[in-house]
Amino acid sequence: MGLFTKDIKTMNDLFVHHLRDVYYAENQLVKALPAMAQKATDPRLKQGFLTHLDETRRHVTRLEEVFKMHGAEAKAIDCPAIDGIIEEAEDTAGEIEDKAVLDAALISAAQAAEHYEITRYGSLIAWAKQLGRNDCASVLQKTLDEEKATDQKLTALAESKLNLRAAS
Amino acid sequence: MGLFTKDIKTMNDLFVHHLRDVYYAENQLVKALPAMAQKATDPRLKQGFLTHLDETRRHVTRLEEVFKMHGAEAKAIDCPAIDGIIEEAEDTAGEIEDKAVLDAALISAAQAAEHYEITRYGSLIAWAKQLGRNDCASVLQKTLDEEKATDQKLTALAESKLNLRAAS
Repeated sequence: MGLFTKDIKTMNDLFVHHLRDVYYAENQLVKALPAMAQKATDPRLKQGFLTHLDETRRHVTRLEEVFKMHGAEAKAIDCPAIDGIIEEAEDTAGEIEDKAVLDAALISAAQAAEHYEITRYGSLIAWAKQLGRNDCASVLQKTLDEEKATDQKLTALAESKLNLRAAS
Repeated sequence: MGLFTKDIKTMNDLFVHHLRDVYYAENQLVKALPAMAQKATDPRLKQGFLTHLDETRRHVTRLEEVFKMHGAEAKAIDCPAIDGIIEEAEDTAGEIEDKAVLDAALISAAQAAEHYEITRYGSLIAWAKQLGRNDCASVLQKTLDEEKATDQKLTALAESKLNLRAAS
């Protein structure tokens, strides 16, 4: 994230700044996931990316809900960290001819994005509670649970592909 | 990470590329952690960053060991994702006057770095096993365990600070 600390004085500023950071990240993922689904060769991975695209659209809507609940303007702040992660996912193109290698690279890129979101939502939930915004925390918690579930599904898929390869 | 997929043909290429990515990340963290320790105001956080600096230096040495075991040149590849995360940590400067806000921002930045490393080591360990390099996997596993422990310590510290604040 681009953190301009001179604008951050209070825990509330930090909370809103991180909300805008993750709002940017979710919107960038909405743009990136269709291409990742197209590149994936394993049908389960392809479907997984499309399912996560639907979830990610819901995460954007939930963040807009939290901005509204908290009385803050819903806007995105450029975040070099997620840009770097998504750049990697986008670069993981059809140039990798070996399907297993391509899928492994896509899974790894997707998991980097998931972990970035997991850590951001974790901080946001803690700070929402501190600010007395348990209502915001519980909306954000729904998304965090979905991000963790997606990360676990990706790990399971990576392991099942490895086992299949080892057995072949 | 800067992923130049035209150079990645095999699972081995992907493994070595990611090793070089995380080697860059660990080296950047060795440079960034002393400043984070200096900025932290809570003595436990300050000490936590210094302890993690020692660990991070060991992680660099372990990666060099893995490069040697695997017969690959130990070199770093620029990684925009970790650069963005570290930039955030570095920007989280003394400009935040409220000590609790400053420490919260530093903890969040450090956790973003930890999660980046956790996901990268997770992929590396899976691929090492697939490549029949259980020896490399077990060296990398030691680092992964330490990264996870650091993340948990940061969460516990964040929560204890929140509880203290809530009680004050």
